Amino acid sequence: MTNPSLLILPGDGIGPEVMTEVRKIIDWFGAKRGITFDVSEDLVGGCAYDKHGTPLHDDTMAKAQEVDAVLLGAVGGPKYDNLDFSVKPERGLLRLRKEMDLFSNLRPAQCFDALADFSSLKKDVVAGLDIMIVRELTSGVYFGEPRGIFEEGNERVGINTQRYTESEIDRVARSAFDLAMKRGKKLCSMEKANVMESGILWREVVTEVGKDYPEVELSHMYADAGAMQLTRWPKQFDVIVTDNLFGDLLSDLAAMLTGSLGMLPSASLGAPMDNGRPKALYEPVHGSAPDIAGQGKANPCACILSFAMALRYSFDMGEEATRVEQAVNKVLGDGVRTADLLNEEGITPATTAEMGDAVIAAL
Amino acid sequence: MTNPSLLILPGDGIGPEVMTEVRKIIDWFGAKRGITFDVSEDLVGGCAYDKHGTPLHDDTMAKAQEVDAVLLGAVGGPKYDNLDFSVKPERGLLRLRKEMDLFSNLRPAQCFDALADFSSLKKDVVAGLDIMIVRELTSGVYFGEPRGIFEEGNERVGINTQRYTESEIDRVARSAFDLAMKRGKKLCSMEKANVMESGILWREVVTEVGKDYPEVELSHMYADAGAMQLTRWPKQFDVIVTDNLFGDLLSDLAAMLTGSLGMLPSASLGAPMDNGRPKALYEPVHGSAPDIAGQGKANPCACILSFAMALRYSFDMGEEATRVEQAVNKVLGDGVRTADLLNEEGITPATTAEMGDAVIAAL
Ligand SMILES: CC(C)[C@H](C(=O)O)[C@@H](O)C(=O)O
Ligand SMILES: CC(C)[C@H](C(=O)O)[C@@H](O)C(=O)O
Repeated sequence: MTNPSLLILPGDGIGPEVMTEVRKIIDWFGAKRGITFDVSEDLVGGCAYDKHGTPLHDDTMAKAQEVDAVLLGAVGGPKYDNLDFSVKPERGLLRLRKEMDLFSNLRPAQCFDALADFSSLKKDVVAGLDIMIVRELTSGVYFGEPRGIFEEGNERVGINTQRYTESEIDRVARSAFDLAMKRGKKLCSMEKANVMESGILWREVVTEVGKDYPEVELSHMYADAGAMQLTRWPKQFDVIVTDNLFGDLLSDLAAMLTGSLGMLPSASLGAPMDNGRPKALYEPVHGSAPDIAGQGKANPCACILSFAMALRYSFDMGEEATRVEQAVNKVLGDGVRTADLLNEEGITPATTAEMGDAVIAAL
Repeated sequence: MTNPSLLILPGDGIGPEVMTEVRKIIDWFGAKRGITFDVSEDLVGGCAYDKHGTPLHDDTMAKAQEVDAVLLGAVGGPKYDNLDFSVKPERGLLRLRKEMDLFSNLRPAQCFDALADFSSLKKDVVAGLDIMIVRELTSGVYFGEPRGIFEEGNERVGINTQRYTESEIDRVARSAFDLAMKRGKKLCSMEKANVMESGILWREVVTEVGKDYPEVELSHMYADAGAMQLTRWPKQFDVIVTDNLFGDLLSDLAAMLTGSLGMLPSASLGAPMDNGRPKALYEPVHGSAPDIAGQGKANPCACILSFAMALRYSFDMGEEATRVEQAVNKVLGDGVRTADLLNEEGITPATTAEMGDAVIAAL
């Protein structure tokens, strides 16, 4: 039997720092649990542009297609703000999503007990919160054609196209229903069917797919009402399914409800490969945080928990995933805090490495 | 001198009830302040469809173009959910916005002192909050062509088009900068320039317009980060300018931060007419709330405050507007509460009419 393979793309900003801690966890699994991964590492984003003039080299793309799972840190930074659109760091990430066809983006928004006070929302509104947003990730206005900036008369016009086919909606809806079946059996689909025809088709297809999941309680909400309801009483939701652009805003909003962005992982899944595993990319929800990069201040938990998601969704090691999640929980319970998890003065925050070491110790 | 003219469109659901209270205020201005409006009333939304088979009759459209200001209640309801897209209640509202060319939608999110406890956010996060979202209202994906549901191969595809010209961005940006000049001189523009070319053009044009407003501190944020920052610490913002779709979500999110949706008005403004007044439509942010319609439970304050915005922006009666706003504030301070402003049991809420009467008394 060959070892499971993992491509690590630390990327920019705090990406490399948090990934260093994940490698400690991976090493721990090899040494203590006899679970060895074939790990390779490569560039994505601004650092890839610096070296190759492109945010994702073709060789890296090819490698990503071959491995069992990709683990990504973060991309982007002010240094690259004025690059041409086509070579911006984000294009590297978007190319990975598109060419690996990772249509189902799982974004859990979970409030850790030890951190419930840290949210801008009242404690009773968020304590115990555990929702999952399933965001379509390979279509919609992110990729639709025509797109660009064109001359029209004597001025310019900026155009992007929102586009969804029935089969694109069908497959992401199924992945959301499947998840709902494993959780609270409630699914809320969000679009703007009152304004957009693509939303009408979305609602129709999701309703149709729902007939195959009679046990799941399906509801529909306009995305603006969804933003409101997430803010008002997020615990009314279990699983939410929505398109690429609404999902971008709503999952970030949901993440912020928990008050601890530095804690949130994500998984982007595609169709099953020959070995039965889905194509998969895992990444923390937080960005590259250039303001604190290289200072040992970053919280590695979101990236560590992204690796836990990889254990669960790519490698069928649900128990090992839970082990990692519980270790993180224990460390939080013990009061270990990186700077982002502290709102009082006078306490010395844990460094990135100290946080990683504490998780190892808790394992 | 002719009286200022006002077209009232109560619409559906709780629209007629809350508008009844506004008419009391209008009558009060005639009787006590010698300010008389020429008021006419007509149908929009589902009730217009019931009578005419269209959510906005051409005659009503023509009237709206002639008056100094339109005051609208709300449109929509479950009764109309299965109507064809082209005659849904919302199309009436969208036609008004488009044909009156109301490109600048002002959506204040203000937290009333007496209601700060009512938010799902912590009191210190929202107390004293006073931000203004300027949403582009006549273009973008709401109106762009091509749009529809088409056959493609052997499946259907739903398409909408995000489209912004330089001049469309320019004019809404100017209205936002003008507002910022009258407020805290800070403007944050939100788009997804990292993913959408229309966002790149948006950012470019807003930056260019900013050169005419050197006193205003301009910043840019991706819309997903904007959703996060609004949730985390909304008081960092003064004025926000964004496109039609992002504005739909972000302004609803901002409204919900205050915890009192039943209190929030809006103004939609177009270009100046011959008399120098902008084309204008005023409406509460809340919807038609069919679940409580006809029961005297609705909070009329948002609609009353929309009328106050009309006094300020259409009729140059800033002092009278402040008078109405202060009356509403006083009533809240006195503890008068409709059901939506109560979270304890055992207190009998004020009815819609009682709330309206209390405002009159406070005037
Ligand atoms: C970095 C950016 C392209 C990306 C997106 O817009 O999808 C990010 O915001 C996300 O949510 O993963
Ligand atoms: C009713 C609906 C068409 C409308 C919109 O989407 O613009 C509403 O949500 C709003 O924000 O005014």
